[in-house]
Amino acid sequence: MMGQHQTGGRRAIGLDIGGTKIAGAVVQDDGTVLTELVERTPEQSDARSTSKILLRLTERLRAEHPEVVAVGVGAAGIVEWPAGLIRWAPNNDYRDWPVRAELEEATGLPAAVDNDANVAALAEARLGEQRYRNMMLLTVGTGIGGGLVLAGEIYRGPTGMGAELGHIIVNPDGPRCGCGNRGCLEAYASGTALTRMGRELAAADPASLVARLAREEGAEVTGQTVAQAAGQGDPAAKALFARLGRWLGVGIASLANIFELEAVRIGGGLVETGDLLLEPARAAAREYAYAARTRGIAPVLPSTFGSDAGIIGAAVLGLEHAAEA
Amino acid sequence: MMGQHQTGGRRAIGLDIGGTKIAGAVVQDDGTVLTELVERTPEQSDARSTSKILLRLTERLRAEHPEVVAVGVGAAGIVEWPAGLIRWAPNNDYRDWPVRAELEEATGLPAAVDNDANVAALAEARLGEQRYRNMMLLTVGTGIGGGLVLAGEIYRGPTGMGAELGHIIVNPDGPRCGCGNRGCLEAYASGTALTRMGRELAAADPASLVARLAREEGAEVTGQTVAQAAGQGDPAAKALFARLGRWLGVGIASLANIFELEAVRIGGGLVETGDLLLEPARAAAREYAYAARTRGIAPVLPSTFGSDAGIIGAAVLGLEHAAEA
Repeated sequence: MMGQHQTGGRRAIGLDIGGTKIAGAVVQDDGTVLTELVERTPEQSDARSTSKILLRLTERLRAEHPEVVAVGVGAAGIVEWPAGLIRWAPNNDYRDWPVRAELEEATGLPAAVDNDANVAALAEARLGEQRYRNMMLLTVGTGIGGGLVLAGEIYRGPTGMGAELGHIIVNPDGPRCGCGNRGCLEAYASGTALTRMGRELAAADPASLVARLAREEGAEVTGQTVAQAAGQGDPAAKALFARLGRWLGVGIASLANIFELEAVRIGGGLVETGDLLLEPARAAAREYAYAARTRGIAPVLPSTFGSDAGIIGAAVLGLEHAAEA
Repeated sequence: MMGQHQTGGRRAIGLDIGGTKIAGAVVQDDGTVLTELVERTPEQSDARSTSKILLRLTERLRAEHPEVVAVGVGAAGIVEWPAGLIRWAPNNDYRDWPVRAELEEATGLPAAVDNDANVAALAEARLGEQRYRNMMLLTVGTGIGGGLVLAGEIYRGPTGMGAELGHIIVNPDGPRCGCGNRGCLEAYASGTALTRMGRELAAADPASLVARLAREEGAEVTGQTVAQAAGQGDPAAKALFARLGRWLGVGIASLANIFELEAVRIGGGLVETGDLLLEPARAAAREYAYAARTRGIAPVLPSTFGSDAGIIGAAVLGLEHAAEA
């Protein structure tokens, strides 16, 4: 069921470039993932190194599935649309990288490149558990990405620079964000924020479970250490999730006051912590909703495809784009 | 030049319902205001009292200009689109008021009703000094209204409840807003906020110019008192404008990080204070812009039509709607 975007059982390669990993897969137009390969994002994640990985993944996937008809990419950062030029990313080193042109030249297949959260939102809108024509997806991982579906289509702005939802300002006096600003939603409610809060906790209380878990592993505290402690019921770690989730909910409310949304989906690595994150987010989204009795409140739900949203959405993008070309 | 919305010299009645006044005018499709009438918003601004004024204005304007072919309304609050039912407003008492049906029945003319900031944005998009296909208008008056023009059309959401831009959260621990929430942009950067800040200043320092001006007039401090003092060069009053403008700029940056805008227009009563408000707003909009080197920064400009934006936009809306019907 792809509505106006009927593609008839075709397959595409979907590539997902994130801050920590690069995934590639062959995906069927109903969302079935046939093969998946994953590599680590290189330390120096400039265009040259990332491109090498991308082309290697594409070649291996195509050798296994020569029937693929298109390539789609979702990448962290600001992507010019429809040119497929990645201009800049807060957590990767590539700059002004013409991904679409490179892929089309290397493969001879039609390619389409968009922001990673945009393609995740596309997967949700076209193939998700419920299909909403007006929805928002926030990917909560290293950073916070945002994808907006308005009247059934991805909102990109005229050249693809729109929907930078992780960089709304939720408190102008807040902590410094990876993008250089202060008080972005990403600075308060991302994996990076959880790492920062976990380290503050461990420094203030070396006897805390968070500090002890890190010491046992001989590693620095990360967001995952906090998640582990919270999973063991540690009140201090759970309190950090409550704060993180509350900020996420404030951001959701702010965005939902702008758009008339039928649903808000949360994806990215942190959504795997489930209600630890989602319950405080829902509470704050209700508390800060404008005119809730009149406008209603959009449900805040985990994304349908979890960590596969990027590769599936990228493949859907590739297929839709190839069908339109 | 109305592009696809050619209407050919026709005239409509434009009505603008605000928190302090209700204006009606006969407007030509090039934006020329032929006649204008203004009444005060009644103390009890429920549907019945407001409706009486609206119908009286319409009747008087039509008697003078029987050639009008449509009626358009811009109203403070949440307006169901295209039904023209005003559901709720934070600063007016009307609730669930079927304005469009009432006007069509009373006049026999096609009528269209939308949020006041939406119609002001429509005036700007269709008839403004420069025509932008992607822009935002914020009306800074008693409250803060917002209108969004994306790809040349007003963004309303599926039923008209979108674009409540004054109610994005700029600090969840901020002051209480007229809508009941905390820390909305409206609670920090509206005329109401300026009144609150002026009263705090007068209470803390009874010798301040703001306090003295109010005492001389035997009245309470309002935003206008602060504007008067700032106009006389009073440093304390100017500092309040700097704070107000800074918050406005934070809100602008936050919204511009979401949309890819070509321009931001500021309308409403407070824009008459000019650079007192706009300079700190521009500085903060620059400071908090996401990836400004890549994405650029939309200019922050006063609206073309000042306090006439509501009646002109309402008339344009009426004419476009009549042409489409």
